[in-house]
Amino acid sequence: MRNLNEENVTDAVLGKLENCADPRLKDVVASLVRHLHGFIREVEPTEEEWLAGIRFLTEVGQKCDDKRQEYILLSDTLGASILMDAINHRISEGATESSVLGPFYREGAPVMESGASTAGDTQGEVVTFRGRVHAPDGRPIEGAMLDVWQTAPNGLYEVQDPDQPDFNLRGKFSTDADGTYEIRTVKPVSYSIPDDGPVGKLLKAVGRHTFRPAHVHFIVSAEGYEPVVTQLFTEGDEYLESDAVFGVKNSLVVPYQRRNGGHLVEYDFGLRPIA
Amino acid sequence: MRNLNEENVTDAVLGKLENCADPRLKDVVASLVRHLHGFIREVEPTEEEWLAGIRFLTEVGQKCDDKRQEYILLSDTLGASILMDAINHRISEGATESSVLGPFYREGAPVMESGASTAGDTQGEVVTFRGRVHAPDGRPIEGAMLDVWQTAPNGLYEVQDPDQPDFNLRGKFSTDADGTYEIRTVKPVSYSIPDDGPVGKLLKAVGRHTFRPAHVHFIVSAEGYEPVVTQLFTEGDEYLESDAVFGVKNSLVVPYQRRNGGHLVEYDFGLRPIA
Repeated sequence: MRNLNEENVTDAVLGKLENCADPRLKDVVASLVRHLHGFIREVEPTEEEWLAGIRFLTEVGQKCDDKRQEYILLSDTLGASILMDAINHRISEGATESSVLGPFYREGAPVMESGASTAGDTQGEVVTFRGRVHAPDGRPIEGAMLDVWQTAPNGLYEVQDPDQPDFNLRGKFSTDADGTYEIRTVKPVSYSIPDDGPVGKLLKAVGRHTFRPAHVHFIVSAEGYEPVVTQLFTEGDEYLESDAVFGVKNSLVVPYQRRNGGHLVEYDFGLRPIA
Repeated sequence: MRNLNEENVTDAVLGKLENCADPRLKDVVASLVRHLHGFIREVEPTEEEWLAGIRFLTEVGQKCDDKRQEYILLSDTLGASILMDAINHRISEGATESSVLGPFYREGAPVMESGASTAGDTQGEVVTFRGRVHAPDGRPIEGAMLDVWQTAPNGLYEVQDPDQPDFNLRGKFSTDADGTYEIRTVKPVSYSIPDDGPVGKLLKAVGRHTFRPAHVHFIVSAEGYEPVVTQLFTEGDEYLESDAVFGVKNSLVVPYQRRNGGHLVEYDFGLRPIA
């Protein structure tokens, strides 16, 4: 294994995996090496470009902390997350369509009574989400859990905003015996993904905007069913056609109906039994 | 741009580059997106595997600091660096062959007199490197600069080792009117690349060792010539056939001749004029 060149280097690197005891890891790393080398062969980076790439990847990692995940943002904005999502949810008849998790999910949101508000003292247009969680055959699912999160009307998730209380606009709601849920919150807004880091710089450099259409995130789960990670988008939002993270699906775009000085969103979630 | 799926997502992401004002950046990012998506389509990662990948990339970035560059180590150990090097030095007749830069180069090494030692008080077998820097036609190059660095006999570069003085075993030497240089140092050893970080963990997980054959790094440069980034390897080293970063070339393997209780390495470097 000497004198490696453009012709033989990829096989040499792949050959070094011969002692890998984990066949799945071996396949993943082999594919990574082939595609990484394919990218280099296609682009033929100069040494300055290669160093710029090293610096970019380093900065993305260093921008991450317990409240920010810049690599998920990179995956989202390059369309990798929605492709991953499509591959992992090929069979979805009877279930709500999924969308990207995004970088701002937090475990441990407070469990709330049906009809309670996640918004605390947050000012904004009041909105109620109401509907049922059901199986593919329409039977209601009792005790399904809806884990929800969204930005405040200033466009920031609480982890990004020192002026919001811990876990503001996050909550877990379970369904009643008839599968119904009810959640109160404030109307979500379209907002820019974090644009002060390397991912924001990259998007700007390639002429892309950083905005997402208004949405509320949901993870809907129930014992014996496949969980669904998804988002509900606001009908009429100006960014529905150009979401910076490619997450919009028609079945997830919902109207906000005017009710009693606020808004009502009616939406039923479908879950599939675990195969 | 809604309802993206396995079939249409890649084109949708590429379409978002239409406003990129920098044609080279556009090509690089488009190739990155195609290969990233190709990797995902081939591997079909589960969501847990995707998150493990996100965590790995984050850890690699966070392991980097002013003395450690884990992303260069990743590039080196996946064969990306030596492929880059091959692509950037296709035409090398008359020049010394190149090899990887590695993650431990530091700018600003002290300029030394010909024949001086970079080793200070470092204990080890004394070795003298001696030779000429010449153009392809054999003419000596006066005032060429040799920027050299290596580990101590404990296998650590000074940046990794608080017990070594700043810039220990690093130095810059220039050639005389007849193109000659002379450098004193201690004999380099084979050593493990840093294995306490995510790259070390990855190599272990795929069944690879982390060792490099003994070598001294050189950047040889001169006004009007293409610089050469290279390494001289020790003949007979047990890791010449399995270098963890794929850097060994036969023309760079040198014998250590016994002389006066120490060693002598004679090596001439060739530089090509800038085209």
